[in-house]
Amino acid sequence: MKFTKGHGTGNDFVIIEDLEGTVELTPSLVAALCDRRFGIGGDGVLRVQPSAEPGAAWFMDYWNSDGSLSEMCGNGVRVFARYLHTTGLAGDVIPLSTRGGLRTAYVEGDLIRVDMAAPRLLGDSTATIHGVTYPGLAISMGNPHLVCDVPAEVAAAVDLSRAPDTDGSLFPAGVNVEFSVRVAEDHRRMRVYERGSGETMSCGTGATAVGVAALVTSGRDAGTVTVDVPGGRLQVTLDEQTSWLAGPAVLTFTGEIDPGSLVRRPG
Amino acid sequence: MKFTKGHGTGNDFVIIEDLEGTVELTPSLVAALCDRRFGIGGDGVLRVQPSAEPGAAWFMDYWNSDGSLSEMCGNGVRVFARYLHTTGLAGDVIPLSTRGGLRTAYVEGDLIRVDMAAPRLLGDSTATIHGVTYPGLAISMGNPHLVCDVPAEVAAAVDLSRAPDTDGSLFPAGVNVEFSVRVAEDHRRMRVYERGSGETMSCGTGATAVGVAALVTSGRDAGTVTVDVPGGRLQVTLDEQTSWLAGPAVLTFTGEIDPGSLVRRPG
Repeated sequence: MKFTKGHGTGNDFVIIEDLEGTVELTPSLVAALCDRRFGIGGDGVLRVQPSAEPGAAWFMDYWNSDGSLSEMCGNGVRVFARYLHTTGLAGDVIPLSTRGGLRTAYVEGDLIRVDMAAPRLLGDSTATIHGVTYPGLAISMGNPHLVCDVPAEVAAAVDLSRAPDTDGSLFPAGVNVEFSVRVAEDHRRMRVYERGSGETMSCGTGATAVGVAALVTSGRDAGTVTVDVPGGRLQVTLDEQTSWLAGPAVLTFTGEIDPGSLVRRPG
Repeated sequence: MKFTKGHGTGNDFVIIEDLEGTVELTPSLVAALCDRRFGIGGDGVLRVQPSAEPGAAWFMDYWNSDGSLSEMCGNGVRVFARYLHTTGLAGDVIPLSTRGGLRTAYVEGDLIRVDMAAPRLLGDSTATIHGVTYPGLAISMGNPHLVCDVPAEVAAAVDLSRAPDTDGSLFPAGVNVEFSVRVAEDHRRMRVYERGSGETMSCGTGATAVGVAALVTSGRDAGTVTVDVPGGRLQVTLDEQTSWLAGPAVLTFTGEIDPGSLVRRPG
């Protein structure tokens, strides 16, 4: 089985081209491929398949590293688009079918820009860590976020090894919590606690929420904000219709693996 | 640059064949290759080079994932030998040159056996974690170990997120601490805290120390002990001359990477 490895700001994926529909993916195989020591390693698998949907030539079949299916991923879409563009399967404007609906990716040199849909503002809320309460703005990007503006020294020191305590009535299924630091006008730096994953190097919807929060708390409903995540730099744009996330997407290496010969991690 | 990825009980390596001496390895390139998200990922790089030493055809040029050089690694030697054997560069008996001296690896089907040199017993000592003191047997395998026999429930619960407190006069440069559980006669299960690395899936010298401790504390100076590490199963043999470590070594995939195009991790 041939594959390509790539990442967007450190969020990394195993890409498998399956134009003929001959690759048998199962949850246990995906988990084995994503194992960073016993397999290839990655946050997920992106399978390239022809789309059955009108308006898109390609379907992004996205699997999480635990073998579960996922609808969308702002970093995954960029890596997927980079693969299609680099291999010549697509041009600079790439309509994609995902489980979360149709998306269009735009290749702009080193960056790839993706429509992240319109944010929904959910009002004020708080996150509490070790007895300290941080006020924040709740935003839905399809998934729930809480963006807390904090000074740089707080963001550097805050303990994200466990989920912050949040309002269970507003976030019944949990929430992703971003700690956002003002670097300059329209420039933020963030750390993120992703529900289900813990602290990560990058969260595409989280970065978009941080950019949106920076704009709306300064009274604007449109603009562009630079958002630095631990894994790199992203650009968030809000306009009257939707939000956009632009950032790097890099293919790191190509490889070949025999899934049948993979020895699984014990226990 | 072509490479092969492999692991021994979860201790994983990027293998680079460099028969002509044309590959330029630098600490920063090794660190970039070993980065699990921005590069290939691994605990180290094993470069295959012709040996300048009489008695061995191949030199194991071993680099740690942080770009520093290392002398020897019980799991690394097995993966290195597996590569030579699988690619036809060597037969079943493989004398190797390493920075730690000449070693001979023996391919025995799925297992590869390596001479780990004679252990030196250093006497009794203790490790203390959260105020609880565990007695242990200090053993040098070239590097220092402290093997603590504990019940299964203690090994399962003990906190190895930080270095145990140990005797600084006996171990001035720190010590690797093993928590060893008796599964049956001549069968142990272990967890290990490696100095400099924290808890790991496997430590070749640590497993050998656990096997040696099991034998000598039952009054024997020879025998074979099965040692289960979190990443798999190893066999330790002690005889009058030396100690041996046998275990699996698996090549997982082959690949090709352009080191010049690697984007480095920020910060």
